[in-house]
Amino acid sequence: MTGQERSEEKSECVSLSPMREAVPAPPECERVCVFGTGDLGRSLGLRLLQAGYGVVFGSRRPHSSSTLIPHGAQVQGHAAAAQSALMIFIAVQREHYDFLVPLANQLKGKVLVDVSNNLRKNQYPEANAEYLQSLVPGAEVVKGFNTLSAWSLQNGPSDANRQVYICGDSVEAKQVVMAVATMLGLSALDRGSLSVARELEDFPLQLFPQWRLPLRIAIGLSAAFFFYLLIRDIIYAYATQGKDISFRIMVSLANKVCPIVSLIMLSLCYLPGVLASFLQLYRGTKYRRFPDWLDRWMLCRKQLGLLALGFAFLHVLYTLIIPIRYYVRFKATERTVSVIRENKTTEFDTTTAWRGDSYLSLGILGFGLYVLLGITSLPSVSNVLSWREFSFIQSKLGHLTLLLCTAHTYLYGWNKFLSSSIYKWYTPPGYMLCLVLPSVVLLLKLLLITPCVDHTITRIRQGWERGGRSEEP
Amino acid sequence: MTGQERSEEKSECVSLSPMREAVPAPPECERVCVFGTGDLGRSLGLRLLQAGYGVVFGSRRPHSSSTLIPHGAQVQGHAAAAQSALMIFIAVQREHYDFLVPLANQLKGKVLVDVSNNLRKNQYPEANAEYLQSLVPGAEVVKGFNTLSAWSLQNGPSDANRQVYICGDSVEAKQVVMAVATMLGLSALDRGSLSVARELEDFPLQLFPQWRLPLRIAIGLSAAFFFYLLIRDIIYAYATQGKDISFRIMVSLANKVCPIVSLIMLSLCYLPGVLASFLQLYRGTKYRRFPDWLDRWMLCRKQLGLLALGFAFLHVLYTLIIPIRYYVRFKATERTVSVIRENKTTEFDTTTAWRGDSYLSLGILGFGLYVLLGITSLPSVSNVLSWREFSFIQSKLGHLTLLLCTAHTYLYGWNKFLSSSIYKWYTPPGYMLCLVLPSVVLLLKLLLITPCVDHTITRIRQGWERGGRSEEP
Amino acid sequence: MTGQERSEEKSECVSLSPMREAVPAPPECERVCVFGTGDLGRSLGLRLLQAGYGVVFGSRRPHSSSTLIPHGAQVQGHAAAAQSALMIFIAVQREHYDFLVPLANQLKGKVLVDVSNNLRKNQYPEANAEYLQSLVPGAEVVKGFNTLSAWSLQNGPSDANRQVYICGDSVEAKQVVMAVATMLGLSALDRGSLSVARELEDFPLQLFPQWRLPLRIAIGLSAAFFFYLLIRDIIYAYATQGKDISFRIMVSLANKVCPIVSLIMLSLCYLPGVLASFLQLYRGTKYRRFPDWLDRWMLCRKQLGLLALGFAFLHVLYTLIIPIRYYVRFKATERTVSVIRENKTTEFDTTTAWRGDSYLSLGILGFGLYVLLGITSLPSVSNVLSWREFSFIQSKLGHLTLLLCTAHTYLYGWNKFLSSSIYKWYTPPGYMLCLVLPSVVLLLKLLLITPCVDHTITRIRQGWERGGRSEEP
Repeated sequence: MTGQERSEEKSECVSLSPMREAVPAPPECERVCVFGTGDLGRSLGLRLLQAGYGVVFGSRRPHSSSTLIPHGAQVQGHAAAAQSALMIFIAVQREHYDFLVPLANQLKGKVLVDVSNNLRKNQYPEANAEYLQSLVPGAEVVKGFNTLSAWSLQNGPSDANRQVYICGDSVEAKQVVMAVATMLGLSALDRGSLSVARELEDFPLQLFPQWRLPLRIAIGLSAAFFFYLLIRDIIYAYATQGKDISFRIMVSLANKVCPIVSLIMLSLCYLPGVLASFLQLYRGTKYRRFPDWLDRWMLCRKQLGLLALGFAFLHVLYTLIIPIRYYVRFKATERTVSVIRENKTTEFDTTTAWRGDSYLSLGILGFGLYVLLGITSLPSVSNVLSWREFSFIQSKLGHLTLLLCTAHTYLYGWNKFLSSSIYKWYTPPGYMLCLVLPSVVLLLKLLLITPCVDHTITRIRQGWERGGRSEEP
Repeated sequence: MTGQERSEEKSECVSLSPMREAVPAPPECERVCVFGTGDLGRSLGLRLLQAGYGVVFGSRRPHSSSTLIPHGAQVQGHAAAAQSALMIFIAVQREHYDFLVPLANQLKGKVLVDVSNNLRKNQYPEANAEYLQSLVPGAEVVKGFNTLSAWSLQNGPSDANRQVYICGDSVEAKQVVMAVATMLGLSALDRGSLSVARELEDFPLQLFPQWRLPLRIAIGLSAAFFFYLLIRDIIYAYATQGKDISFRIMVSLANKVCPIVSLIMLSLCYLPGVLASFLQLYRGTKYRRFPDWLDRWMLCRKQLGLLALGFAFLHVLYTLIIPIRYYVRFKATERTVSVIRENKTTEFDTTTAWRGDSYLSLGILGFGLYVLLGITSLPSVSNVLSWREFSFIQSKLGHLTLLLCTAHTYLYGWNKFLSSSIYKWYTPPGYMLCLVLPSVVLLLKLLLITPCVDHTITRIRQGWERGGRSEEP
Repeated sequence: MTGQERSEEKSECVSLSPMREAVPAPPECERVCVFGTGDLGRSLGLRLLQAGYGVVFGSRRPHSSSTLIPHGAQVQGHAAAAQSALMIFIAVQREHYDFLVPLANQLKGKVLVDVSNNLRKNQYPEANAEYLQSLVPGAEVVKGFNTLSAWSLQNGPSDANRQVYICGDSVEAKQVVMAVATMLGLSALDRGSLSVARELEDFPLQLFPQWRLPLRIAIGLSAAFFFYLLIRDIIYAYATQGKDISFRIMVSLANKVCPIVSLIMLSLCYLPGVLASFLQLYRGTKYRRFPDWLDRWMLCRKQLGLLALGFAFLHVLYTLIIPIRYYVRFKATERTVSVIRENKTTEFDTTTAWRGDSYLSLGILGFGLYVLLGITSLPSVSNVLSWREFSFIQSKLGHLTLLLCTAHTYLYGWNKFLSSSIYKWYTPPGYMLCLVLPSVVLLLKLLLITPCVDHTITRIRQGWERGGRSEEP
């Protein structure tokens, strides 16, 4: 189109033609071919039809398949179907790819989109897409769309799976695929050459990769504290007094392990941020990368926090059912009976009431903030927050939560820290052990927010470097 | 554009022109007309302006309307406005459509977008868009955008309403509308000819269509168990002992109905999957469609599960307030008093303590998993999960939840199953009735995960068919 | 492109060329320049590379920077880099903008995208983008993309930040930026001329602007009721009986303030809707704007409701821990002991049991609905609801929640309203004060749903106007 044509168009703006021109990709007569009439193939075909493409299914037995395919699509033999379109989706399982070998002539120069997935990692020596390319060297293979399920195609892509990854050796072929993706309402990102295909194929097979480390920490801590408390509480009672209080495992012990693990994991969630600040202070610059272990730790803070919330939730439930327990009701009756029978007088102790109520109140407020942090971690909530809002909640309110929960635990201990009778077998009780980490984190954080340290940190974060070299534009 | 022109462009890559060319649809001089200056019309206009279109409002009284329209738009008489643009949004109520009849000449060949909605289903004999087409036969009517509210247009479309449906008889007209939709940040899906318009118009009027069946099941079950327990507990006590314990309806009875309905609905949520597996096993293929009732059942599993979670939540609250109840506090005092007055000795029973604490602990863990399942059902959370992660949570953790809740209920019953005294009027207690379904589901699931059955199921799911016909590529 | 060329293309539909043409913007050889190799610059570059653009980084020290930039990008001196592309992202802090002045020649006619953000509002006298324009008057400055963080660029934009705002004085420059945004999977909205830049720059700095008013109301109400109840409960007891019950502040007082504030805020959430209806009734039209204060009030209803839910959540927790409190356990023992020692007989009162259980049950159901309202307020949930479903939940279920919670509070008061002993120092108890507003809202709502009023309201909402002037088409 020459410049003159452009200006002519401008002048006849209200006529029909400029708007027609404006249609980004008039797909009215474009055809896309789909090999395979399984769930995924049919869903792809339907979606392509809805986006305005003509769709031709390739099938070994076109006649018997014609009832399966969506209304509006055609079905032909593989060879005929392949010839009628530039782009062919291969929605067939890898084991059957060899039927494509005899079609080499018809597939020459075509864009083959490999949408296949495997059942497990390393199922085959090479990626499906690379295998496909080796079978049909004359075609341009593009890997992609494999994160979409037939279901999400039928129901319209939602936010998260709107983004699809593609890879392939031919830039032109990838552009053709990207254009079709755009028309389907997807946003395709080019991840590089076909050698990345294995990575893309492993993508839908991954099972919570970011949750593994936090889950392992949670399980490790739970197991360690479970056995520690089992020995201190139940085995100690049995060994020294011969009492069988093993029933306590189910609720009392669980209700000690949960808050301990929760508090430690919450501190682990804020420790790396504090360490990173001190590292920046020490180095005097923000332009050097953090060590790998710190990077990885910082990336799983959200997961650490959510697991901590889960344990806190269980702690709340375990605490609230205390008065329903047979043991507790039995003890209450026994205590009242002994008051009467031994004619004791009971004195109301205001200090105990203050301490107990404060302990409960801090716990409730801490848990309320905990839940708030959890809610703002939901993708749809954190997305509507500006960066400043998100960091206000996750950092300011997060440290406040840690402070409240730590204070709650200190009040639980109260004056028992000094009494030697609680150090059974010379071991400290669980809540004392779990206070170490949060106390350290809070102390370090306190250091960081003193005005002079805070000022230096802020300057470093703005690009200032100790030693004078300022940020390069 | 000829091949030569293309290659020339390539060579002058760093010049200004190629990027200019790259702009998908330079809408600088395109005009879109909007009839109607109500909320929706104004919001549409504003959004079109923001996307770079020129906007002309058509109004009967252009002068008095000029204060209402967004800054940057023009307002003209209907005839003049219609002539200035190819595409006209009809943001006017259906009753007023007849003002378009005299404009037939100006509207000839124009694309009229009917964005109207009705107040209720079947309000008019034919769809608004079809009525519009009959009034202005020379124009190309496209139905669409009616799922967008004025509010969502002003605030930018969010994920769910980013997708809009259109229909119309003219392919070209639909492409014009699709192009504008793309520029507005929407993704338009073509649903077919104008005869689909009624369906699109009914869309915003639907009220939880997927929730109806599960809600009916929940209400039916609740009512049935309420009356069953009312008779067994309260009427029985009145009839046989003359005691009025009707106050129990408010909490005790509610706290029996809730867990019963919750457990049954949770099993109903996992039963269809198990049935489907057995059907596939029996048929030896995955390529035959499930019966309609099973399909419909499987589509409402999420709703069944969420309602079950709702009932479980109420059960938890009803359980936790037990110690606050007047009746419970009264009974506790009475029991202690009778221990003293009758000089009884009470013996602590470790078995009872074990049973009670296990019962509570299983309930807490079951509820924790229940909540986890609920959270992963939130659209924003399930969207970030890969298919494998989603099915891990909903299937593996789901069945574990069912197992924990069923065990919780068995422990509640404990050794009462054999005592004949609980079969008042020869009826079993509610918790016994509600254990039937989950026990069956768990047994069937156990069968399915035995290695040999599991192996066959897996092969069938991979496309293998009994009788040798393997998946057609 | 002439009409003839178009028709030719149509006829050769299955050839390769039409699909090639369909690619919206073949960016294969387009280059984009990025100045600045900080976090944001690198992330921008990586994203541009993934979308298929060529990327050239401009750096003062190209050699030392080459290790920092993403693989596939080039790095050159600023002047050389500027010349190689039409569009230049300025990912540099404002203080360093002056390095651009000597580049004026190379930047002439280029599109400079100012992506900078400030640390706080009004940090500089003019917007960064306007300052940039004043430094390089020959370039076309476009402000935009500043709501995106480096993090969200790396991880792919999610729903909420998919939408970016841009502004600038040149329409052509903005179109170039919009086209690139589209290729990056973003949807850019034009907000007008460069004078809007300050507004866009303030955007990421805002801290919960919509939450301010509701939060102030919540804090104000909490403080007022806290002091009111402190005087009535604790200081009164000390002044008249000399008893120190100050420990009650932590739980008892908190558990009075929370439900009171929650109920008042829930009514404040439904009051504006009721007022708006009465205003429409009074005016006889929906076409006049509401007063500003009412508009602002209606816009923060969601925040009011969520804060109310937060207070209700705390109330539930404070209530559920009641039986664990030392004070409560002490009192229970004391009561039992006094029953024995004074040889009282206790009589079970069915009315009290009915009242108490109803009170608890209404509270539980009200809280259940409250939580349901909260869940449907989550962006991802409300997005999948049709307008009718959303208004059903927020209006019908919302008013039902208010009714249940109000009834819960009335049952709490029960027959104490008439007893004069509760009016300590002639002041009514807190729960009585907090019942005023919800009772008024419910009464007004009741009026609005009487058939004759409802009929008029519905007609007005459909466009009917008293005085005969009907909606203008």
